Amino acid sequence: MKKINVGIIGATGYTGSELLRLLLNHPHAQVTAVGSRKEAGLAIAEFFPHLRKHTDLKFVDSSKLDAFYDCDVVFFATPHGAAMQATPELLANGCKVIDLAADFRLKDVAVFEKWYGMAHTCPEVLKDAVYGLVEINREKIRHANVIGLPGCYPTAVQLGLAPVLKAELIAAKSIIADCKSGISGAGRKAEVELLSAENQTNFRAYGLKGHRHQPEILQGLCDIVRHDEVDLHFVPHLLPNIRGIHATIYARILPEAQDADFQQLYEHFYANEPFIDVMPAGSHPETRSVAGTNQVRIAVHKQNDLLIILVVEDNLVKGAAGQGVQCMNLMFNFAETDGLNLIALVP
Amino acid sequence: MKKINVGIIGATGYTGSELLRLLLNHPHAQVTAVGSRKEAGLAIAEFFPHLRKHTDLKFVDSSKLDAFYDCDVVFFATPHGAAMQATPELLANGCKVIDLAADFRLKDVAVFEKWYGMAHTCPEVLKDAVYGLVEINREKIRHANVIGLPGCYPTAVQLGLAPVLKAELIAAKSIIADCKSGISGAGRKAEVELLSAENQTNFRAYGLKGHRHQPEILQGLCDIVRHDEVDLHFVPHLLPNIRGIHATIYARILPEAQDADFQQLYEHFYANEPFIDVMPAGSHPETRSVAGTNQVRIAVHKQNDLLIILVVEDNLVKGAAGQGVQCMNLMFNFAETDGLNLIALVP
Amino acid sequence: MKKINVGIIGATGYTGSELLRLLLNHPHAQVTAVGSRKEAGLAIAEFFPHLRKHTDLKFVDSSKLDAFYDCDVVFFATPHGAAMQATPELLANGCKVIDLAADFRLKDVAVFEKWYGMAHTCPEVLKDAVYGLVEINREKIRHANVIGLPGCYPTAVQLGLAPVLKAELIAAKSIIADCKSGISGAGRKAEVELLSAENQTNFRAYGLKGHRHQPEILQGLCDIVRHDEVDLHFVPHLLPNIRGIHATIYARILPEAQDADFQQLYEHFYANEPFIDVMPAGSHPETRSVAGTNQVRIAVHKQNDLLIILVVEDNLVKGAAGQGVQCMNLMFNFAETDGLNLIALVP
Amino acid sequence: MKKINVGIIGATGYTGSELLRLLLNHPHAQVTAVGSRKEAGLAIAEFFPHLRKHTDLKFVDSSKLDAFYDCDVVFFATPHGAAMQATPELLANGCKVIDLAADFRLKDVAVFEKWYGMAHTCPEVLKDAVYGLVEINREKIRHANVIGLPGCYPTAVQLGLAPVLKAELIAAKSIIADCKSGISGAGRKAEVELLSAENQTNFRAYGLKGHRHQPEILQGLCDIVRHDEVDLHFVPHLLPNIRGIHATIYARILPEAQDADFQQLYEHFYANEPFIDVMPAGSHPETRSVAGTNQVRIAVHKQNDLLIILVVEDNLVKGAAGQGVQCMNLMFNFAETDGLNLIALVP
Repeated sequence: MKKINVGIIGATGYTGSELLRLLLNHPHAQVTAVGSRKEAGLAIAEFFPHLRKHTDLKFVDSSKLDAFYDCDVVFFATPHGAAMQATPELLANGCKVIDLAADFRLKDVAVFEKWYGMAHTCPEVLKDAVYGLVEINREKIRHANVIGLPGCYPTAVQLGLAPVLKAELIAAKSIIADCKSGISGAGRKAEVELLSAENQTNFRAYGLKGHRHQPEILQGLCDIVRHDEVDLHFVPHLLPNIRGIHATIYARILPEAQDADFQQLYEHFYANEPFIDVMPAGSHPETRSVAGTNQVRIAVHKQNDLLIILVVEDNLVKGAAGQGVQCMNLMFNFAETDGLNLIALVP
Repeated sequence: MKKINVGIIGATGYTGSELLRLLLNHPHAQVTAVGSRKEAGLAIAEFFPHLRKHTDLKFVDSSKLDAFYDCDVVFFATPHGAAMQATPELLANGCKVIDLAADFRLKDVAVFEKWYGMAHTCPEVLKDAVYGLVEINREKIRHANVIGLPGCYPTAVQLGLAPVLKAELIAAKSIIADCKSGISGAGRKAEVELLSAENQTNFRAYGLKGHRHQPEILQGLCDIVRHDEVDLHFVPHLLPNIRGIHATIYARILPEAQDADFQQLYEHFYANEPFIDVMPAGSHPETRSVAGTNQVRIAVHKQNDLLIILVVEDNLVKGAAGQGVQCMNLMFNFAETDGLNLIALVP
Repeated sequence: MKKINVGIIGATGYTGSELLRLLLNHPHAQVTAVGSRKEAGLAIAEFFPHLRKHTDLKFVDSSKLDAFYDCDVVFFATPHGAAMQATPELLANGCKVIDLAADFRLKDVAVFEKWYGMAHTCPEVLKDAVYGLVEINREKIRHANVIGLPGCYPTAVQLGLAPVLKAELIAAKSIIADCKSGISGAGRKAEVELLSAENQTNFRAYGLKGHRHQPEILQGLCDIVRHDEVDLHFVPHLLPNIRGIHATIYARILPEAQDADFQQLYEHFYANEPFIDVMPAGSHPETRSVAGTNQVRIAVHKQNDLLIILVVEDNLVKGAAGQGVQCMNLMFNFAETDGLNLIALVP
Repeated sequence: MKKINVGIIGATGYTGSELLRLLLNHPHAQVTAVGSRKEAGLAIAEFFPHLRKHTDLKFVDSSKLDAFYDCDVVFFATPHGAAMQATPELLANGCKVIDLAADFRLKDVAVFEKWYGMAHTCPEVLKDAVYGLVEINREKIRHANVIGLPGCYPTAVQLGLAPVLKAELIAAKSIIADCKSGISGAGRKAEVELLSAENQTNFRAYGLKGHRHQPEILQGLCDIVRHDEVDLHFVPHLLPNIRGIHATIYARILPEAQDADFQQLYEHFYANEPFIDVMPAGSHPETRSVAGTNQVRIAVHKQNDLLIILVVEDNLVKGAAGQGVQCMNLMFNFAETDGLNLIALVP
């Protein structure tokens, strides 16, 4: 099979380098253009020494898009706002687009503009964009031209809640998601609060006044249940780890659902999913068990009328680059697991 | 002032060495006997090289108690069950006892025996023992002969909930405490699951089937409100840190309390407490900000009808050894902060 | 091509699980028998949850070897001494053997017995065993039936020194190797000194009185130069990391070699090696740049008459399981890089 | 005793906050002015929440020095070059000065200007400044008005070598110091290479082309031996820790010194030093054993003709702020250990 040509714009950050890790070894894709404004001309392997012996490509200037016209698909691993500027031109040249930032996540332009503080420049593209949460939107993704990939937290929380929300077994308006993430989720930014000496032996909550992923999760949950009688408190915390998200989700079981078999419900719901592992009853999934992989592991616990759902994922893989590759596989009719059959790096 | 004589039994673990750190520099106490069964005869500074230049004492055999008869107070940093064996003999010899394990925490012997799997050997001593949560039980502690020190998680959760529970502003039967602890809380035990290579880049929940600290917290909360219409889900997680507990507590605000000023309530409640810091509105306390100190830092957030209380402490200090010294200070009429005026090691 | 059958004995430790990670995805090998004495009968994925969805195998009892007779090759990831007990029986049944422990490393039985404190039970097998340092012994490995895989430190130090020792440009009797290793090198053992709380914010040297890898390195260096006028001080240190070895090697440049082009020498020496990356002049290789991979990265610096050679490897991959797979590839005429084309997990 | 007034300029970095930790609890000093250009007007405890309950001071604008005229001593925890600008004015107003940066370390102005890339603005002050390595220069420090505090690495290396260099037992021209430091030594700077995600599971050498601490160490060693027949290779590495330096020093023992008792030599040399701990023969000092303290621990090992000296210190305490307080104690006739009787935070 002829390999497809893949472009990556904004490849100097953590999700960008993760795309390179996955795509440079993909059986049906070849990375043909890697863009950066600041590093144009530099060999990628000089910027990322861990890619020495894996690629001879150089960064191209991503402020001009013609280097990407030959791509079948272009990934954006850029700050919010970059993808929507470039997408119309790429679509016009026959490229599909997968955005790892937030430009195509929120369907309501007003909500996007409120939370991201910028006007949306292509609302008509947004209208046709598909939210790339594969296990929920698989068929739409197959036919999409533009994917807005879910945020890292929203992926974990929505996958944790989908079975039980769809089955209408919990009080949908009083959900709490206490989430913990490794620091790579904050990106490769020169900020004092992301320094080793600030975080390595520390732990703290953040974003209690409101976090951009809350409206995204709500939108997703409402789509899943097809009504908007859902509400959720989302409280993120920063782990002294590099990778990994652990969501601890609390939901009240409806009185009529007290006898439901939640373990079985989850196992059935995800029975055919290659990247969702419903663990045995009583399990405590570990973030390291998915490190470097596209896997999500879920455990369900019942304490009286409280359902406690534990979800782990690698924020850079299933929470970003890996889910992007999973979408790409669907969009080009590859096997969904191509390039993603990875075993976690343990210990 | 003549210094009091202090004994420590079980000083080879983490709470024991923390007692040594605090007591070797205490202005009114001198450590005169340090017990260990396995290390009797060995110089403490040989076992703990970080104590070289700070003590010339040797471990004495703690299976015989006469070496401790001269002590004004004896701390137990032993596994559960050791203190209750020895306490009657020490009391008979005029020693006060402060137990860092669970022997004197749970007032209901049946509850103790259920959760700790052993018979209680001195229920009459237990009856008179005082639960050493200073900010709640200060006056009783002053006159106590036996202190059952709170567990590390119970200290954080009770201090986080006391103001709002006492004021009857939350639904007391649907509290959730999502807690995260550094690994020193598990003790200095040779177990595979506590190895560096198992934990250092990992995060997970544990104890979802039931944790010994849950009944202890419930007992404490019921004491605070003087009724038993309280219930709490307690979900502990293991941080890849050595020290520090972060409790994220979720409580539903009662309809009639929607307009309460929770910030002010907490500030007033703890206005005179030397070791409780109610942080400014909007804060996110960090575990490192209390590392090595007896301080607790609390922040209160309101999201619609949900009250979110963030609490940090050092599990080995305010959650164990430091709270023990704070009790000792009260029991011997020292200033409550003596030996505890410590500044966190940041960064 | 029909896949070969592979057995792993002692798969519950870190090098064993690393073999599983590499071999379960190998294009030409299938893992058919995985042995453990303690866990016989248990599903591997129950013991190692990160392998859920990757294998349905159960541990077999490795005290009986017949379960391994069908294997084309058997890896030993056991404590020192186990492989030599079993190897003759496996050889007799047509299995090749690759030992990750020390049983077949040291050619001089007396030296083995001195450092490992046990008698060698099959010196005749040892005689024919090949030391599995691929870049030095590639041709012998192709035809070997028994491989003694190098230790983790010896791999890094020998590969760092080989070019310059062979070229006779340094004073071979005053070499210093200051090495630093992640803690996974110490194995998955329940020992207090390997606990998270003991190591996570710590750093120390160890083994200054003598370390088993020193005679192994010396043997290897003497083989490389074909004389025994070599001596080396080897000083290991324990990093608060899980994976990764960094060797900093100091060697005096011979007076007549002051003008040698060491950069070019190393580049030429390793020009065709798929797993050796000689970095550009002035580089400082990072341990993370090889995490999870079989790659070795080397940088060479000259300071007056001192040559400083920096070498990084992943101790569990090139320092153990990966080098084992590399040997297996040679022994069965696969491409040397089969199953090993891995990109480091960065960040 | 009336407390002296202490000023700190540049207190928003790691050595500055460490000075605050030590000085806010000093029995004979009170911090009266804390300067910062950027944060003037802000409460210190707002900037450093771990100092809440410990100080009510606000940062003053350090671009004007009159706020510091009342100080008996002013510490500079500023970038290189700031102290020399301000020192003459402070001296004229009767303040003593202790600089934690490099302005008063290197006696040869040309060497300073080469390595630090700036002209020295007060060479006449430099001439009278004293190098604040207490164990070597104690008497001079008592009478000094300006102290140039040693760098963190130079403190460890000089203290490790002083006994054996003074006794002329090693080849002084072929010393190697392989040093490893926690990342706080790099300061509180918003740089990508200091991020958690870049360092936390990593290890690497740096500065192989030349490091500013090399000429400083050489100057110090020459002062100790009173000649300049000394040379040293200094190779720093970055640990994934926040605090702690471990120096592994290699020196060739002179033929005539093969039978010297190095253990005894070190013990005698440092017998009366409160902050130097010569550990028992065969020891491996740990960085955590000095965390948060002014202690240095040293172990000496002999391997044939090679002397291996292991030294640990906390780079922010004995390597910076603590040594500054030790100097201050001498300059004002306090006990040398005042405010420095600290026990390491272990675990």
